[in-house]
Amino acid sequence: MPLISLTTDFGDLYPAAMKAVILGINPAVQIVDITHSIRQAGIREGAFALYSLVRYFPQGTVHIGVVDPGVGTSRRALAIKAGCGGEEQFFVGPDNGLLIPAARSLGEIEVYEITNPELMLKSGVSATFHGRDIFAPAGAHLSKGTPIEAVGPRISDFVDLDFENFGIDGPFIIGEVIFADNFGNVITNIPEEVVLKFSSFGSQIEINSRRISFVQTYGFVGEKEPLALIGSHRFLEIAVNKGNAARQFGLKSGDQVVVKTV
Amino acid sequence: MPLISLTTDFGDLYPAAMKAVILGINPAVQIVDITHSIRQAGIREGAFALYSLVRYFPQGTVHIGVVDPGVGTSRRALAIKAGCGGEEQFFVGPDNGLLIPAARSLGEIEVYEITNPELMLKSGVSATFHGRDIFAPAGAHLSKGTPIEAVGPRISDFVDLDFENFGIDGPFIIGEVIFADNFGNVITNIPEEVVLKFSSFGSQIEINSRRISFVQTYGFVGEKEPLALIGSHRFLEIAVNKGNAARQFGLKSGDQVVVKTV
Amino acid sequence: MPLISLTTDFGDLYPAAMKAVILGINPAVQIVDITHSIRQAGIREGAFALYSLVRYFPQGTVHIGVVDPGVGTSRRALAIKAGCGGEEQFFVGPDNGLLIPAARSLGEIEVYEITNPELMLKSGVSATFHGRDIFAPAGAHLSKGTPIEAVGPRISDFVDLDFENFGIDGPFIIGEVIFADNFGNVITNIPEEVVLKFSSFGSQIEINSRRISFVQTYGFVGEKEPLALIGSHRFLEIAVNKGNAARQFGLKSGDQVVVKTV
Repeated sequence: MPLISLTTDFGDLYPAAMKAVILGINPAVQIVDITHSIRQAGIREGAFALYSLVRYFPQGTVHIGVVDPGVGTSRRALAIKAGCGGEEQFFVGPDNGLLIPAARSLGEIEVYEITNPELMLKSGVSATFHGRDIFAPAGAHLSKGTPIEAVGPRISDFVDLDFENFGIDGPFIIGEVIFADNFGNVITNIPEEVVLKFSSFGSQIEINSRRISFVQTYGFVGEKEPLALIGSHRFLEIAVNKGNAARQFGLKSGDQVVVKTV
Repeated sequence: MPLISLTTDFGDLYPAAMKAVILGINPAVQIVDITHSIRQAGIREGAFALYSLVRYFPQGTVHIGVVDPGVGTSRRALAIKAGCGGEEQFFVGPDNGLLIPAARSLGEIEVYEITNPELMLKSGVSATFHGRDIFAPAGAHLSKGTPIEAVGPRISDFVDLDFENFGIDGPFIIGEVIFADNFGNVITNIPEEVVLKFSSFGSQIEINSRRISFVQTYGFVGEKEPLALIGSHRFLEIAVNKGNAARQFGLKSGDQVVVKTV
Repeated sequence: MPLISLTTDFGDLYPAAMKAVILGINPAVQIVDITHSIRQAGIREGAFALYSLVRYFPQGTVHIGVVDPGVGTSRRALAIKAGCGGEEQFFVGPDNGLLIPAARSLGEIEVYEITNPELMLKSGVSATFHGRDIFAPAGAHLSKGTPIEAVGPRISDFVDLDFENFGIDGPFIIGEVIFADNFGNVITNIPEEVVLKFSSFGSQIEINSRRISFVQTYGFVGEKEPLALIGSHRFLEIAVNKGNAARQFGLKSGDQVVVKTV
């Protein structure tokens, strides 16, 4: 059975319209909600959600991502094939960077502009809801085996996005918060391998001048104590054992994080 | 594969009981959550959610709607067939108007009272959770092809509901808020065709004495500026570009909206 | 089609990683979210959610439960077969009591420790996310028919949990709040049969010294009036008709409830 994932900032109700359209085109597809709670217009946040999960999806999955402040303007609609050698996955969404880190993490990418009206909602395309009218039907057709070349012309000048823009300055690693999850865990853009070059489990590190333990998991510190760890996304995370690090450290998505090894 | 949609005010946990019962009867059905966040006992809100989405679902879909302040009293349980000519969809839920606007929007309707105990939960019907004990099993049986006549007698004195009760008075259109979505967009009951008879894109209109732009999409006004538009539901909506119109205009579901073209 | 249910305290995003792993192993499985909103580390709350719903799921369902404050420590991972005679259901999750009441409610249980690395995530097991790396793949394999003996050794010293620990003292029944749902309904651990031995519908009872009506459903009392009833979970519940009993009675999960029949 083919698989489609959905990542949006739509909250309630609107995702069901996308699912209705998808299942009208491909009744046998499995649909997985990644999230519909991305902060409104939070392109980087949405890009991270998708990026952090694609490696767990099987070959052939079509990921539809819609965090789309430019809907109704001239921003293009994209379909992307990523990976190779029978390990391809597909991405559909707006040309604003949202899909790029996830797609790139799977290997080579081919980017196409969706222009073929045959693959859009039969009853017409609205100015405000391309998730339902363009991305859902395009994704459903890809999940049924429509070749990606059918969506429109291949392009190379798509909008790029990269959140691995951390810097290293002597003993400092300067990064950014890219996501704060439901637990209040603060996920940075500093990858596991960079952290482990500077520090080792069991040592102390400083996060924005505050000294905390760098350990393998929550249980290594007392309740309500802060810790730094390599999270399940394989980035440096700041957490509080049975507490809320986002609140305790006053950190939200986009904020700078300065890490010092001590 | 057959398709069932769910629209309730149940929030968390209870929808899973409905899904368990449905999949026990019809293991091959696809289930789509429209929403489980309708305001408690918000029959008009639930009716709108369902109404706004049914047109996107494929033929044969069974929509189970449960916003049911009268559960356990003598209110009847209904099953409805709507539309014709191979384009039928089905509706299951309480007799309080919830299902009617959605069903009517598809064409002719046939309304039946669910009385057949064979189509109810085998382990018995509780006084408080007909969603699980009556509507879920009835919907699952319909999705498997049980003819609607099997549920019970056809009736004609069902509770009606209509939210197209707007009025026109000289230059004023007087309508009502029927939904405020997660973005704070305020959706009125004034249909596209009525608005476009009075006004055209690019002009100014007054909403409750406040003058705003009537445009095609969010990007036509500055950030945090209000706008009126025809939303993806094809009704007049009031929005704020990257902001919350429900908050800014102090409008919630049920409130009056007076539109004046200027 | 096989069926997997998910009950976690993960909130958003992380459940999708579990689903991706499950569907990579068993593309034809149906997945039902019971809830992902269990209070963080709320083992008793999660145990109740699962317990209250399993009876509605069909034979063969695999329930994955992950409320797991001990993740990454030495707590064991479990798989359980519950029930017999062609009515078995399966459970996968941490050894902290979470799965036990639900499994026991189906009859005899066989408990196994998951130790077989063949049934874990191929790309490795993290210290913080066994839901994705151990429980999701183990559950997916069970849903495909892998015999439960393949997961690892059978054990008998698992962590137990029982929320039927109410007491009876003369005219008092002393119990506990085990769940407060989205409506603010307060669900106690006092079973239907115990309540009905002491009291009958239509009488008054005292809840923590406050006298309220014990009735069959909400509609028997006025709006905003409190009531006691046997909820759809078959436990004594305290509710307010179109109101929030948790707030009005100041009760939350874990609090003591003293019931007196009058």
